[in-house]
Amino acid sequence: MKLQIAIDLATTEKAVEMVSLIHDVIDIVEVGTPLIMREGMHPVRTLKAMFPGVTILADTKIVDGGDIEAGDAFDAGADIVTVLAVADDATLDAVVGAARKVGREVMADMICVPRQARRAADLDKMGIDYVCVHTGVDVQARGVSPLHDLDEVKGVLQKSKVAVAGGISMKTIQAVKIIGPDVVVAGGSLTRAADLRAAVIEMKNAIRN
Amino acid sequence: MKLQIAIDLATTEKAVEMVSLIHDVIDIVEVGTPLIMREGMHPVRTLKAMFPGVTILADTKIVDGGDIEAGDAFDAGADIVTVLAVADDATLDAVVGAARKVGREVMADMICVPRQARRAADLDKMGIDYVCVHTGVDVQARGVSPLHDLDEVKGVLQKSKVAVAGGISMKTIQAVKIIGPDVVVAGGSLTRAADLRAAVIEMKNAIRN
Repeated sequence: MKLQIAIDLATTEKAVEMVSLIHDVIDIVEVGTPLIMREGMHPVRTLKAMFPGVTILADTKIVDGGDIEAGDAFDAGADIVTVLAVADDATLDAVVGAARKVGREVMADMICVPRQARRAADLDKMGIDYVCVHTGVDVQARGVSPLHDLDEVKGVLQKSKVAVAGGISMKTIQAVKIIGPDVVVAGGSLTRAADLRAAVIEMKNAIRN
Repeated sequence: MKLQIAIDLATTEKAVEMVSLIHDVIDIVEVGTPLIMREGMHPVRTLKAMFPGVTILADTKIVDGGDIEAGDAFDAGADIVTVLAVADDATLDAVVGAARKVGREVMADMICVPRQARRAADLDKMGIDYVCVHTGVDVQARGVSPLHDLDEVKGVLQKSKVAVAGGISMKTIQAVKIIGPDVVVAGGSLTRAADLRAAVIEMKNAIRN
């Protein structure tokens, strides 16, 4: 199981500071959607230049213009880009095509997909590298967790790896571990920790043991 | 009927150059999603500072974190932000709430919504200012047009205005005009014109007469 940290509410400067503390212990650094909306590809380009050995995911949440938007993110140095699973198959195909051209990867974000298992089976056939079962922050506020869907989605995937995101913390990590996704995404529970490095190492140990 | 120009494939510098040619004749300037992904809120901030009288729409396509992402775009100077209609109602409500706080507006993008009339009726009740019937570029490639859905969506809206986007050009503008949306969004057919100002004026005249 890999650990992905989502850096959402930060500047590029702050993100650099955070990654400098954890680059040797984190598996994937996600430049979150709010940070991309504020600063575009600047944080992706900066982090890749400063930490070339770190896997950078750009949470672009592409829903149209797959070839151009994915291409831009890969040009900036992203190793993985995200596309919405609710997007049209033509967009998903275009994003996968853009990734294959440069030997990079695609994560499909299942946010707001109604019938998850059915869509996950489509994504698996399309060559999506990671299917991310994701409960958004706005939906987490009413107590929803991604764990039920995670179990179901994992069951239908044959080639794609599965990731999970949405309120993951040390409180829920054992329940996540039982289902055993390939990637665990944690945001605020890590980025708001008093000691970021210690929090990352603690969660890494929790998913390893 | 208002005319909105979508500026997608440009830098901030190029967008400024374009808007300087049309600021007195265009109704709404859209900072497109690919431009936001590349440069964040920089083009929104720059255009609003240079052309304070122009209505700026930030095509943020928000799908989560409605309050923060809309708030950031409004802080940067956007008059209108977009949210995906496929987003959870909690996200749509948060974006509408963020808009009301600062007296700005929200456009919901119907891209990838399966049953458009039903969702449009929800959006109308939620206080969405504009419902945009939108055929994405990746889907336009297989010959789909937004006009059929436009007619149906317009029929169910009571308070929300209706916009249309997706391959609109001088070739299709008469068919659009018959249905009569409140906002017509044109991208490439304007931005790729040899004479941008003449193309905008021509389309403005076409929707006026």
